[in-house]
Amino acid sequence: MDWRAATEPEPLCIFGTGDLGRSLGQRLLQSGYRVVYGSRKPHSCGPLPPGTQAMSHSAAAQSAALVFICIHREHYNFLETLAPQLQGKVLVDVSNNLKKNLYPEANAEYLQRLVPGAHVVKAFNTLSAWTLQNGPSDANRQVYLCGNSAEAKQAVAETATKLGFTVLDRGSLCAARELEDFPLQLFPEWRLPLRIAVGLTAFFYFYLLIRIVIYTYVQKGDDISFRIMVSLANKVFPIVSLIMLSLCYLPGVIAAFLQLYRGTKYRRFPDWLDRWMLCRKQLGLLALAFAFLHVLYTLIIPQRYYVRNRIAGSTILLIKENKTSAFDSALAWRSDSFLSTGILGFGLYVLLGITSLPSVSNALSWREFSFVQSKLGYLTLFFCTLHTYLYGWNKFLKPTSYPWYTLPGYLLCLIVPTVVLVLKFLLLLPCMDRSLTRIRQGWDRTNKVDDGEKSLLA
Amino acid sequence: MDWRAATEPEPLCIFGTGDLGRSLGQRLLQSGYRVVYGSRKPHSCGPLPPGTQAMSHSAAAQSAALVFICIHREHYNFLETLAPQLQGKVLVDVSNNLKKNLYPEANAEYLQRLVPGAHVVKAFNTLSAWTLQNGPSDANRQVYLCGNSAEAKQAVAETATKLGFTVLDRGSLCAARELEDFPLQLFPEWRLPLRIAVGLTAFFYFYLLIRIVIYTYVQKGDDISFRIMVSLANKVFPIVSLIMLSLCYLPGVIAAFLQLYRGTKYRRFPDWLDRWMLCRKQLGLLALAFAFLHVLYTLIIPQRYYVRNRIAGSTILLIKENKTSAFDSALAWRSDSFLSTGILGFGLYVLLGITSLPSVSNALSWREFSFVQSKLGYLTLFFCTLHTYLYGWNKFLKPTSYPWYTLPGYLLCLIVPTVVLVLKFLLLLPCMDRSLTRIRQGWDRTNKVDDGEKSLLA
Amino acid sequence: MDWRAATEPEPLCIFGTGDLGRSLGQRLLQSGYRVVYGSRKPHSCGPLPPGTQAMSHSAAAQSAALVFICIHREHYNFLETLAPQLQGKVLVDVSNNLKKNLYPEANAEYLQRLVPGAHVVKAFNTLSAWTLQNGPSDANRQVYLCGNSAEAKQAVAETATKLGFTVLDRGSLCAARELEDFPLQLFPEWRLPLRIAVGLTAFFYFYLLIRIVIYTYVQKGDDISFRIMVSLANKVFPIVSLIMLSLCYLPGVIAAFLQLYRGTKYRRFPDWLDRWMLCRKQLGLLALAFAFLHVLYTLIIPQRYYVRNRIAGSTILLIKENKTSAFDSALAWRSDSFLSTGILGFGLYVLLGITSLPSVSNALSWREFSFVQSKLGYLTLFFCTLHTYLYGWNKFLKPTSYPWYTLPGYLLCLIVPTVVLVLKFLLLLPCMDRSLTRIRQGWDRTNKVDDGEKSLLA
Repeated sequence: MDWRAATEPEPLCIFGTGDLGRSLGQRLLQSGYRVVYGSRKPHSCGPLPPGTQAMSHSAAAQSAALVFICIHREHYNFLETLAPQLQGKVLVDVSNNLKKNLYPEANAEYLQRLVPGAHVVKAFNTLSAWTLQNGPSDANRQVYLCGNSAEAKQAVAETATKLGFTVLDRGSLCAARELEDFPLQLFPEWRLPLRIAVGLTAFFYFYLLIRIVIYTYVQKGDDISFRIMVSLANKVFPIVSLIMLSLCYLPGVIAAFLQLYRGTKYRRFPDWLDRWMLCRKQLGLLALAFAFLHVLYTLIIPQRYYVRNRIAGSTILLIKENKTSAFDSALAWRSDSFLSTGILGFGLYVLLGITSLPSVSNALSWREFSFVQSKLGYLTLFFCTLHTYLYGWNKFLKPTSYPWYTLPGYLLCLIVPTVVLVLKFLLLLPCMDRSLTRIRQGWDRTNKVDDGEKSLLA
Repeated sequence: MDWRAATEPEPLCIFGTGDLGRSLGQRLLQSGYRVVYGSRKPHSCGPLPPGTQAMSHSAAAQSAALVFICIHREHYNFLETLAPQLQGKVLVDVSNNLKKNLYPEANAEYLQRLVPGAHVVKAFNTLSAWTLQNGPSDANRQVYLCGNSAEAKQAVAETATKLGFTVLDRGSLCAARELEDFPLQLFPEWRLPLRIAVGLTAFFYFYLLIRIVIYTYVQKGDDISFRIMVSLANKVFPIVSLIMLSLCYLPGVIAAFLQLYRGTKYRRFPDWLDRWMLCRKQLGLLALAFAFLHVLYTLIIPQRYYVRNRIAGSTILLIKENKTSAFDSALAWRSDSFLSTGILGFGLYVLLGITSLPSVSNALSWREFSFVQSKLGYLTLFFCTLHTYLYGWNKFLKPTSYPWYTLPGYLLCLIVPTVVLVLKFLLLLPCMDRSLTRIRQGWDRTNKVDDGEKSLLA
Repeated sequence: MDWRAATEPEPLCIFGTGDLGRSLGQRLLQSGYRVVYGSRKPHSCGPLPPGTQAMSHSAAAQSAALVFICIHREHYNFLETLAPQLQGKVLVDVSNNLKKNLYPEANAEYLQRLVPGAHVVKAFNTLSAWTLQNGPSDANRQVYLCGNSAEAKQAVAETATKLGFTVLDRGSLCAARELEDFPLQLFPEWRLPLRIAVGLTAFFYFYLLIRIVIYTYVQKGDDISFRIMVSLANKVFPIVSLIMLSLCYLPGVIAAFLQLYRGTKYRRFPDWLDRWMLCRKQLGLLALAFAFLHVLYTLIIPQRYYVRNRIAGSTILLIKENKTSAFDSALAWRSDSFLSTGILGFGLYVLLGITSLPSVSNALSWREFSFVQSKLGYLTLFFCTLHTYLYGWNKFLKPTSYPWYTLPGYLLCLIVPTVVLVLKFLLLLPCMDRSLTRIRQGWDRTNKVDDGEKSLLA
């Protein structure tokens, strides 16, 4: 074994002695590199990691082939004067901005313009100082990089790999702006599902406010506005939860019918369907959050002053009318089934949520993940829909359920899940299932004689 | 620093332009490789990742030393005609089948038979197209490979490492079938615990159905079948949960007594004990799921029609008999202790569940993990057992607790946890503890004079 | 592509055939190495991984340049006699001790003293045999190493990287003791938060015990000691939870005011503030645990014997006095708002807890993480504080709330969160916010003319 061949570690240069520069230097040191800092005031730049040394910018630049620029973009201009010393060096731009579109060009492109003779590589900017200092085990291990020189990128990639990161090349320096926007993004994939959730919540809140609180006030003159806090919330949350859960499964069903109709899987889905399929996980997690609130709101019901007052009132009424409380076995069956399906549905809901955790879903094989998210997912939807039907039971027959000719909330919310379950049931019929399986295995109705090569579906 | 030495990226070839081929190509491009596609119809093979090109199979094969075969096994036969062009090349078989044992030999072995002059390596088949396209940060980063040529495996391993994956060599091509079965497996380690859970649930459901519902119907003529939905479930779930939790800790106690009896730790445990120890995590998580359902079923009790009706009935009865409700302080102590031990037990249960999440347990040192899973685990078992004893209290003295001479469910379920706790208590006695520690440090009763080397226990 | 250049795998040597030696050997084999074992009794050392062979120690040592010492420290002494054969070899010490400070020097330093001619590297000791055997995907992937020879460390680092681990160099062999203490540490970063939690819990338990149970006993002669189990716990847990949640956010507010006062961010915070900031995550998670217990204790209230008895008693009293239960709409508003803010606060609490899971927080960008932990964190604190104010309402006006002139618990616990929220509100005022943003962007009041380079803040 030739372990003696390992050479003296390479010196790397860091411009800037702030938080990020210090963290990066410490990490490089721990991975076996030698580090020199370039500083405006090499003798008074504050505490540096032990084992490193600070020099003037030009001296530091000359000692290393790779220079990390850990300086704010606002202070880049002095680098123009260092252009001769930086000629042919690899400059790693790690900077970020505080907002998107602050400047007409990306920081890395600006740097390249200032020092045209150097090879600028954008990298490491998606990592925090904290991640750099503590290594990739506690944070995202992906390092994105881009640049115009393949050799310069290769050199930076090797350093990143030695620090324990995984490198992803995003192409030429034009991609720098995209990389600089990464750390500024705020849940882009959650935006659409959040908008749907907020929209549905607002709609049903106002709808039920009118149906229940305002109707009672106008027709009977009773002020039951206190119901806004708990009763209304506990009607809106389960409605939104069930609709959003069924919206998770609707695109899959639509896609299956589209494939059946087209007779092939080789044509792209429309864009809206693609986008919808990509946010199913977020839709499901928001649905779970609403279900969780529904459970809490339901469980505190017996502690509400209003409920305790009403129970005492009904007991007193029974006494006064000299009745005993008659027991209705059918009602007990219905009440217990209603509660039981709700609990089992919520239990499965939580299971789906847990398997969505990155560390859990990574530990599952593809078949296991699809079993949980598809089979158990439909079972969850079935239990929750049944729970809602049992809640409604025969209420829809009573005229009092339709104040101002409006439908009850639970009837409105049953539409989408019922459609999804019926469509899914149709897809499970043997004839449909057989056609669909054939299409998904690569069979193509429009091109039946194709017996040659077929590309592999994962 | 010699960053200029980096060479032009190597061209790799992909046969097949389906989902998997496109995803793999995109990922290879992003990691800095050049990619050419081999296709039956190079001019009409649909959208390919920008920067790649499609050629005929033979032209593509000649341009690269490494060829990824992203084609269904059903279409492999045409490769036989390309044998001359594939002579000496590394062929990476990434295919999977839809079911186990569809074909007499593994896909990779079939490929090797078709092109005997090539070096077939089975690899990447455990990854989904999704993982390939998005990189290892969002999925399992392990790539399994096998093949008969060490050099060919080394070449594939290097590529996989550049893509950010960790490589695990599983030996010669004979292992290909095993690798092809990986993505088809469905929770193999959960099977035994799930069977135990289903078996216990079924047994106790029928046992309690007979004791409670059928007994009442036969003896008193009352139909209380509605209790199946909630009351019975809420008796069965805690029973199964407690038994399964104690089954987590029983094998450890048995192993300790076995080591004490044998006087050494250097003899293997019987196979059934090994298998039992390996599924403790799954047993514990299922126990937690049952405990979670028990908590939900308990918390909705006040909302059941049956319970509200019974409470109103008992208040009315008190009024009619002109009694006030006498307060029994001892009963309050017992009721509150019963609830409190249950809550604390469940809180610890949830803590154990959270530390079982891969990302949490990975962040713990070995000593921390064993502290949580062992010390806190026994505390959880203790609280839950105490909760059950407080539930039973003096009920076992009443003759009405033994309809048809059957034991109450809670008494049956206390057997295993009580045994585990008593045995664990014995092991904690100083004399036992001292012997066991000595044995686990490598001391051997049968071989006392061995003062030479002793192998290290992790 | 030059995949033919891959050479015959290097032979590595393992001394010791115990659990750890076998696991390590298996893993090395799977990663493509050849492995030979050195054993005292090469012909009777039990089952070894297939494909390896056992030899005498001296023969094994001579066949490889790198020797893993998988032997207990107690048996190191025989290595002294092998010094000639081990001359110039790299010895990897993977041993751990059962306790801290058992020996005057670290195991690796002892080994170096026994075999001065070898290059001792401490490594792999933080991994369990389990991790070694199953690879880094299921456990911490960080390997710490230290040693006096840079070349020897490089050789070990390369091997670790091939096994799929990430290497972190901790310097010279002096660091060996620190590395040997790693696996023995027990939640060091949880110690301070746990002490705070235990201290607060104990204080409030005794405080409320005196105010409620002992006061009632002394003044009225009633024994309400049963309240210790649930009522008291359900007063103490929310108090501790709210105080600890506000302690999470207090140091950030203090730090901001300190920066405003100093006019710069370039001066270090005092040590106590640094230490406090570093345990915020643990403080928050403990606060969540207490909130979780509070929720469970609250939800079981209707099932307590005491509560059911009291409700029945109050209904009977109403009947006897021939009253109906009058409904107070304001009380209903207050009761429902109190419950609703509590539920929303707890929902956000749980969300904060979920985003603290390593696998979830790793998937967030820095801006997303800070949005959740800061913005949503303050919202959680706001909801929980409001929940507590609504609980208190006008109780503080009644003289009966001050037995023995003590303040009610909820008033005491409102102090810290109110201070935090008021200070945070001040920081959000435009004038304050502008100054703080400027300081955090690198502006320095003491050094205003500095228009040169400014170091980059991550």
